[in-house]
Amino acid sequence: MAFRLRPSERGFYPLFTQAAENIVVAADELARLVDAEAPDRPTIARRVKAAEDEGDRLTHEILTKLNSVFVTPFDREDIHRLASALDDVCDMIEEAADRIVLYRLGDLPAGIAVQVDVLCRAAIRTAAAMPGLEKVSELHQFTIDVNSLEDEGDAAYHATLAGILSPTEPITDPAAVLEAIKLKEVVDTLEDAADAFEAVANTVESIAVKES
Amino acid sequence: MAFRLRPSERGFYPLFTQAAENIVVAADELARLVDAEAPDRPTIARRVKAAEDEGDRLTHEILTKLNSVFVTPFDREDIHRLASALDDVCDMIEEAADRIVLYRLGDLPAGIAVQVDVLCRAAIRTAAAMPGLEKVSELHQFTIDVNSLEDEGDAAYHATLAGILSPTEPITDPAAVLEAIKLKEVVDTLEDAADAFEAVANTVESIAVKES
Amino acid sequence: MAFRLRPSERGFYPLFTQAAENIVVAADELARLVDAEAPDRPTIARRVKAAEDEGDRLTHEILTKLNSVFVTPFDREDIHRLASALDDVCDMIEEAADRIVLYRLGDLPAGIAVQVDVLCRAAIRTAAAMPGLEKVSELHQFTIDVNSLEDEGDAAYHATLAGILSPTEPITDPAAVLEAIKLKEVVDTLEDAADAFEAVANTVESIAVKES
Repeated sequence: MAFRLRPSERGFYPLFTQAAENIVVAADELARLVDAEAPDRPTIARRVKAAEDEGDRLTHEILTKLNSVFVTPFDREDIHRLASALDDVCDMIEEAADRIVLYRLGDLPAGIAVQVDVLCRAAIRTAAAMPGLEKVSELHQFTIDVNSLEDEGDAAYHATLAGILSPTEPITDPAAVLEAIKLKEVVDTLEDAADAFEAVANTVESIAVKES
Repeated sequence: MAFRLRPSERGFYPLFTQAAENIVVAADELARLVDAEAPDRPTIARRVKAAEDEGDRLTHEILTKLNSVFVTPFDREDIHRLASALDDVCDMIEEAADRIVLYRLGDLPAGIAVQVDVLCRAAIRTAAAMPGLEKVSELHQFTIDVNSLEDEGDAAYHATLAGILSPTEPITDPAAVLEAIKLKEVVDTLEDAADAFEAVANTVESIAVKES
Repeated sequence: MAFRLRPSERGFYPLFTQAAENIVVAADELARLVDAEAPDRPTIARRVKAAEDEGDRLTHEILTKLNSVFVTPFDREDIHRLASALDDVCDMIEEAADRIVLYRLGDLPAGIAVQVDVLCRAAIRTAAAMPGLEKVSELHQFTIDVNSLEDEGDAAYHATLAGILSPTEPITDPAAVLEAIKLKEVVDTLEDAADAFEAVANTVESIAVKES
């Protein structure tokens, strides 16, 4: 688009960047939580929750801004979708942290740290891409990168889940079955978070297509 | 907005009010079901199902109306979102009732009744707010109230889930593990219903912001 | 609408038809997978995955087209919703196939084949309806048929789930509990796929109402 946007309309880009940077914070805290001993986890989970609250605040600010300006840098529906998709990522990360604490899980399978590492890298990649909404240029690479990270997360998810539900030694203890179910919920939630990043990337690409 | 709406456009408000009042019926029947002895539950579950059918009918009527009028009292997308969010609440309440019967659950943990009570109060609050869509004034308080109820529901959810999955006495019986998983599904569904009310409140607030 | 659409705008119909026909392929492969011996399933699951990839490609093509044309045969939001709903069906079918393999399930309860058969018939009905988007005439019957199939799927889901979670012989073996939970995930995913067809039908009906 050839005409220049006024500052108020450009205000969406910094907000999206902030929302993505906030996801980096949430994902990093989740990585710390997964790495920590069980007794230290509730404190770290509260920091993940604080990031989720900040994410809610930013989502609310974006949607309020959306409702108060006449001209938007791209389609209103796309702004709504992008804000919601970023919010979903943050919710899923918080839900994973919450479940690990709530279920009083002890040692976690190594695959969980691999899944969380993928989330951390996807968050950094997303935060780097958000200012690009203004330039469009690097956004196609962003989608490719996030899809590639999603494939990596998917492989980690499948391997971890197989280890939990179909271990080499058959499960003979009822308490171990319950433990397996709890772990399954955590790895499912982490996979949902990876999928939510894909939704962010798909929305960004649909914006890029319209602008190009 | 200064101009007056014609009756056909105002027709959305009574429909949203009816949809919310229908949720009150569904939530009240769910409370009765949770309170009842197991053999009496299937009959009550059919009444919850009847409310869900009525909810589907109302959603359909709202969306058909949306497609047939040229002027709407607020954004088409928001009408669609609000109708869908109310429909989701009703679906979740019916799903919870359905699961309790389908899983042939007996005595339920006390926390489930607390979760359902939060849903009943959120339903009443929502039904009271819907006519306010026309006036906008009381709607911000509605969002605050629903968010506060959601926090209450969240606390009940966490406490109930911890009791089910991490009981003080370790679970040693395979049948008890299966029972725990069934109960977990029910409390998860009730939490989804509470979250669906939050989606209703968020949609209402986004409408309020545009109208103000 | 009296005016004639240009070829570029009419291009949406063949794409929706292709997406629905691709779902027929995915559902048929899923039926084969359910029918097969466990060692033969991974190969068939890869064919379901290939159909899902093709579904992603078609969704992407529809959304790209949506962003590049000025005139669309019906509301942009409805095109987006319909493409997403078809994509969801395909995702759910692939997820069901994936879980059966990932969980290393052996013999499956007969009810699962009944659920998959409903999906196959819903897919065929949907593929037959898509060209009708251009004529509108047969579309109301389509919604009725899909809703009736959804009821059939729902009954199969309930019966299968009751058999898995509340068998006549009480479960006394921890490994059997874990098996029950894995099967429950599969039948839940199949039910989600049936619900996703209903979302397709509801979107189609909302388009039909506007065009009539």
